[in-house]
Amino acid sequence: MKDNIIGFYEQTRLRSLSLCEPLEIEDYVPQPVVYVSPAKWHLAHTTWFFEEFVLKPFDKSYKLFQESFCFLFNSYYNAVGTRVSRHQRGDLTRPTVQEIYAYRQHVDDAMHRFMSHGELGQHILNLIELGLNHEHQHQELLITDIKYVLGQNPLFPVYKKGYNLTNQNNFCEGFLKVKEGLVDIGYGGDNFCYDNELGQHTVYLQEFEISKALVTNAEYLEFIEAGGYLKSEFWLDDGWTWVQSSEVHSPMYWHNKNGSWYHYCLSGLEPLAPHEILAHISFYEANAFATWKGYRLPTEFEWEAASERLEWGQRWEWTSSAYLPYPGFIIQDGAVGEYNGKFMVNQMVLRGASSATSPGHQRKTYRNFFHPQYQWQYSGIRLAK
Amino acid sequence: MKDNIIGFYEQTRLRSLSLCEPLEIEDYVPQPVVYVSPAKWHLAHTTWFFEEFVLKPFDKSYKLFQESFCFLFNSYYNAVGTRVSRHQRGDLTRPTVQEIYAYRQHVDDAMHRFMSHGELGQHILNLIELGLNHEHQHQELLITDIKYVLGQNPLFPVYKKGYNLTNQNNFCEGFLKVKEGLVDIGYGGDNFCYDNELGQHTVYLQEFEISKALVTNAEYLEFIEAGGYLKSEFWLDDGWTWVQSSEVHSPMYWHNKNGSWYHYCLSGLEPLAPHEILAHISFYEANAFATWKGYRLPTEFEWEAASERLEWGQRWEWTSSAYLPYPGFIIQDGAVGEYNGKFMVNQMVLRGASSATSPGHQRKTYRNFFHPQYQWQYSGIRLAK
Amino acid sequence: MKDNIIGFYEQTRLRSLSLCEPLEIEDYVPQPVVYVSPAKWHLAHTTWFFEEFVLKPFDKSYKLFQESFCFLFNSYYNAVGTRVSRHQRGDLTRPTVQEIYAYRQHVDDAMHRFMSHGELGQHILNLIELGLNHEHQHQELLITDIKYVLGQNPLFPVYKKGYNLTNQNNFCEGFLKVKEGLVDIGYGGDNFCYDNELGQHTVYLQEFEISKALVTNAEYLEFIEAGGYLKSEFWLDDGWTWVQSSEVHSPMYWHNKNGSWYHYCLSGLEPLAPHEILAHISFYEANAFATWKGYRLPTEFEWEAASERLEWGQRWEWTSSAYLPYPGFIIQDGAVGEYNGKFMVNQMVLRGASSATSPGHQRKTYRNFFHPQYQWQYSGIRLAK
Amino acid sequence: MKDNIIGFYEQTRLRSLSLCEPLEIEDYVPQPVVYVSPAKWHLAHTTWFFEEFVLKPFDKSYKLFQESFCFLFNSYYNAVGTRVSRHQRGDLTRPTVQEIYAYRQHVDDAMHRFMSHGELGQHILNLIELGLNHEHQHQELLITDIKYVLGQNPLFPVYKKGYNLTNQNNFCEGFLKVKEGLVDIGYGGDNFCYDNELGQHTVYLQEFEISKALVTNAEYLEFIEAGGYLKSEFWLDDGWTWVQSSEVHSPMYWHNKNGSWYHYCLSGLEPLAPHEILAHISFYEANAFATWKGYRLPTEFEWEAASERLEWGQRWEWTSSAYLPYPGFIIQDGAVGEYNGKFMVNQMVLRGASSATSPGHQRKTYRNFFHPQYQWQYSGIRLAK
Repeated sequence: MKDNIIGFYEQTRLRSLSLCEPLEIEDYVPQPVVYVSPAKWHLAHTTWFFEEFVLKPFDKSYKLFQESFCFLFNSYYNAVGTRVSRHQRGDLTRPTVQEIYAYRQHVDDAMHRFMSHGELGQHILNLIELGLNHEHQHQELLITDIKYVLGQNPLFPVYKKGYNLTNQNNFCEGFLKVKEGLVDIGYGGDNFCYDNELGQHTVYLQEFEISKALVTNAEYLEFIEAGGYLKSEFWLDDGWTWVQSSEVHSPMYWHNKNGSWYHYCLSGLEPLAPHEILAHISFYEANAFATWKGYRLPTEFEWEAASERLEWGQRWEWTSSAYLPYPGFIIQDGAVGEYNGKFMVNQMVLRGASSATSPGHQRKTYRNFFHPQYQWQYSGIRLAK
Repeated sequence: MKDNIIGFYEQTRLRSLSLCEPLEIEDYVPQPVVYVSPAKWHLAHTTWFFEEFVLKPFDKSYKLFQESFCFLFNSYYNAVGTRVSRHQRGDLTRPTVQEIYAYRQHVDDAMHRFMSHGELGQHILNLIELGLNHEHQHQELLITDIKYVLGQNPLFPVYKKGYNLTNQNNFCEGFLKVKEGLVDIGYGGDNFCYDNELGQHTVYLQEFEISKALVTNAEYLEFIEAGGYLKSEFWLDDGWTWVQSSEVHSPMYWHNKNGSWYHYCLSGLEPLAPHEILAHISFYEANAFATWKGYRLPTEFEWEAASERLEWGQRWEWTSSAYLPYPGFIIQDGAVGEYNGKFMVNQMVLRGASSATSPGHQRKTYRNFFHPQYQWQYSGIRLAK
Repeated sequence: MKDNIIGFYEQTRLRSLSLCEPLEIEDYVPQPVVYVSPAKWHLAHTTWFFEEFVLKPFDKSYKLFQESFCFLFNSYYNAVGTRVSRHQRGDLTRPTVQEIYAYRQHVDDAMHRFMSHGELGQHILNLIELGLNHEHQHQELLITDIKYVLGQNPLFPVYKKGYNLTNQNNFCEGFLKVKEGLVDIGYGGDNFCYDNELGQHTVYLQEFEISKALVTNAEYLEFIEAGGYLKSEFWLDDGWTWVQSSEVHSPMYWHNKNGSWYHYCLSGLEPLAPHEILAHISFYEANAFATWKGYRLPTEFEWEAASERLEWGQRWEWTSSAYLPYPGFIIQDGAVGEYNGKFMVNQMVLRGASSATSPGHQRKTYRNFFHPQYQWQYSGIRLAK
Repeated sequence: MKDNIIGFYEQTRLRSLSLCEPLEIEDYVPQPVVYVSPAKWHLAHTTWFFEEFVLKPFDKSYKLFQESFCFLFNSYYNAVGTRVSRHQRGDLTRPTVQEIYAYRQHVDDAMHRFMSHGELGQHILNLIELGLNHEHQHQELLITDIKYVLGQNPLFPVYKKGYNLTNQNNFCEGFLKVKEGLVDIGYGGDNFCYDNELGQHTVYLQEFEISKALVTNAEYLEFIEAGGYLKSEFWLDDGWTWVQSSEVHSPMYWHNKNGSWYHYCLSGLEPLAPHEILAHISFYEANAFATWKGYRLPTEFEWEAASERLEWGQRWEWTSSAYLPYPGFIIQDGAVGEYNGKFMVNQMVLRGASSATSPGHQRKTYRNFFHPQYQWQYSGIRLAK
């Protein structure tokens, strides 16, 4: 077990660095919109987790790398003073990228010593496992945030040649029918899961059908060409307000040049491939498309009940379920307890996983969630009826 | 049946006027915030419903009162042009209140003729019934919007002496336990209900307990005095953002003068009565109070399952359920179809009814909904665990 | 002198009422934008001036009409508390219009008694004269604010048939040349003037030419048709930002219907008459027009030096002068001292007078001033070179 | 002459690089507020000037470094498309700092060749001189923008030890009296000046007195301690609005820790030295201080008339003059003509120079200008009466 956790730790920490390998120093800095954090912030914040929740309380020999980092890389550090707020992560040029790499090394060395020599109780193992899953989550955000930073640059810089996370196709077609009845929802196993998946419980589902394939670029283009972004009748009221105020008229990263569609990928600006699976849409767009098509989105329970008979994992799939607690959900005490519960309003659940999800960070019970207007994740559409 | 509908029509239409009877002409005009519509707009818009959906399509002899009203009092008239938007309802001084009363009279006369002489098919009867329920809803908004307009005036004008809709007390105490199992949710009867209540379906509920009493002013004051509005740990993340940006530190209409609490009622500014049932709180406040108290809010399904053994009807009760479609929910064609479905995102369900709800406009299956930050309804808290 | 002041008082006070005579009660209420005050606020605020600065300090027998009015109609009452700010004047439905008329009557009666019986020292006479000039200013704002309220209503209501303040023509043409040299600027007489006109002083002017005619609608249409609103090169930097963010593309109240131009007047929506003098433009537009035409706006000193040889009084004429103190300008002590000085930044001077200016409220030394983006005054363009 | 211009070119271009020498790569990137541009943008934009206005039109052998830079580093490139606006300069991580240094080298090499071999007509020499003065201006902005970026970081990073541009003291005291009469204003010499200084003209000045010393930190602290930021009576109306909405309560970079005042300097966070000359205040603050003290700010003409008998050059001195054209001011044709004229509204003139001004970039006729709310320049106060 101790060897397992050390291996898991090293592999996970290394992957974060490898994702940043193609970056220039400048790319680590900006926060172009409030929900896109700088790469250097992700690298530091995931490190801070281990320092704050493992080393500080349990490793008496641990020496802080630098005291100020405790509040700089707390994701709640905006509460600490009036001069630094979440909106200003991109304005902090110091600590430098190099200092943050040194910080990671310092904490990794300490964690290695701690994991190798200490007697790790279950509680500590759980915290480390949580920290590594936390880092998995930030790895996906690293990719989507880097894509945002590069993708809004008029030079459309290449992140890495041939690295294109949106070029998947469907292998199945048609609808799967699921009979009415009771199903168990939520995680019931012995391995790691988040608190929001716990509280396995019975749910009664009506009969439904769910599509085996995800919506493709070509299908979504039909919606655009049918005036989908111009007609309020397909949209939820808040969605229509969003379309008008943000002047969105396509998925994120799509560009129309002289009548031809291109999209920005991590491999650069490329012609849009019609049969590839659609990505980078908001819940509002997913819902409007489904309405236009005469279908609906599945609930998260329907998705989970059908998941073993579906192919999934290329796109996060918007569901029609709001992100709410399962029965018996209890917020844990302390800062770790702030993990999931406090976001349970105004967000929609996405199920599945995406091509940007860290390997091993997939579960059929996994509940991802975002505000309904966000497009920058690798999000797609599965229809139901 | 024809007599019934005529009686129902007259009684309902009269009630709207009677609610406005204590108003001065000036009170009909402003829209102090975008979600509070002017009284004269409510009177005209409810009238427009009958003109647009009943008289124009079905009464060939009907002559429009004035053509411009068709777009002025369409609740979607903001789509019609750039010069009038929903935000500007309070800037339209014309048509005058007197003209709107004349408009009501014109439409009421036509409706009376139409209902008396015509052969009313079921479809038409349904539309009239929908229009009258629509007017019931606007009657409650009339009251809450009038209270908003008067309540933000530093003179605290009296709407009507002795007319105080917040002076109810609890008659029960303790918790009701409900066993795990299957329950039927949604409207299954033959009378009127909204489309969002239809699709009666089976839901599996875990065992729960639900409070027989609603939270009182005194209990909520404890929360305030315990620093409830100052500690982020009780709040959902979006709720905490709301508290800070809107600088809320009490329920709406509460005023602290030299250490004593008062609240504005339709009968004027009055000392806060500790044992009366709390009103005018947002979902964020309801949820923070429940968290602080170590409880939670009930789901809308738990509420409906327990409702026959509870006393309710004085306050709209915030539930922990997001406002989402029931299985099989289908949006009806045409403008009437926009009634409910398009609001099914970012809003929370309230169950029950309030002291401001029109008589007869109560059902245990009724699903009210508002955005989680709104305080201006007669909304309260019932706890669950 | 005593008779003069009583006559002046009665005539002035009566004129305010007569301007409101065509209004419906509803028209007195809204504040559609922050710089447009409700008619009822103007009527009360001008009354409050006499109560606050004359009756309260000097008439021992005076009884306040109502104590709350002291802060409600102070133009700085937004500083008094958090619940009423300048932005919310339009939300205050009480006191009613009728109560405000009663307030005027109460103060007018008291002033009549006071002026008839008291021994009026020069200081008091000066205050009354200031109050009446203050009311003149608000009379012009009354007209422009009423026009704004009615003019943004899609029904384009008629204020008064035949009452059209924009139908003047030029009677002169060509340019007037003024030689280089010293001129005296500022008020040097014995009658009333504002503090911002005082401090008569010598200014050295270079030779200049100034147009005898004001710019007409037809001339301004050429600018529009030449793409004036689409080309940044004619605009000051802040002006171009204003054009883009406010989406202005014509003078205020102009409407293009199927290729023909109309404008809203107090007499209703009317076809634009090409030879009438242009009105309702901002400083930014005036300056852009002059730049496009190869001219410039005159300075306020050039205007004053040439004024006796020019025809003026139909439009406020934007000058190229920022509103700044004259040499030796001293802000008077106390609240009356706040009259003019505190606005001396970010505003541009307008000279002359308009067709909406109260009779007798014209002087060649008069310095009007507004922020450069405001269009709602009867403002026009005189060119210089 | 040719040697002179080459030497001037090399010295100027080198100085920009030397100002950036202490920076980390990350420091070149952010734009924390819209008026603070990234260091890398300054380096590129000043280079673009020579490419666009000298090399492209006059050096036929010149090859563009990269075509996209033509619009990326045009200060008006926000007009070019919807995807890049002035607000997003800080989001552009590419081109990298290294590429921008290569761009500078490329243009410098080309300029060197061009200046060495070509026959440089007067027009070209003028353009080069303008470009170098343009770079001088950006050098001062480089310093103030770098200070802003570092100064809002809670770590208060040191730019360079001992490099403290605010530690000057006054050497004079008392007031200088200047007699009434005619003075010549504006540049009349043969060397370089900006278009806004031209049009030397006669101005008639009233007698005035002007302080020989600038206001110190100690004097300004008295204003703070007297409640200067809490009392509206000292402030212009727009200034008071600014104080309240921006929650300013001291000069920029001042911090009060447990009752002691510190200020951020380029040498780090240091205790405030009372006798040093005040810096980093807005026009609103300068004007409020003068009002509180019973004085006023000088006009720009008074300043220029007295300048030869004053010590100046440590701080930009706010005057009471709005930034307006001199008589006969003509905007030059073409893009270079946009240099100054289009900013002539809503800004106030500052005279003198600061400790951050490039050597040689000082003239008594120099007219600097900023919006009245900006604090981030090395701006101070000289009183007049």
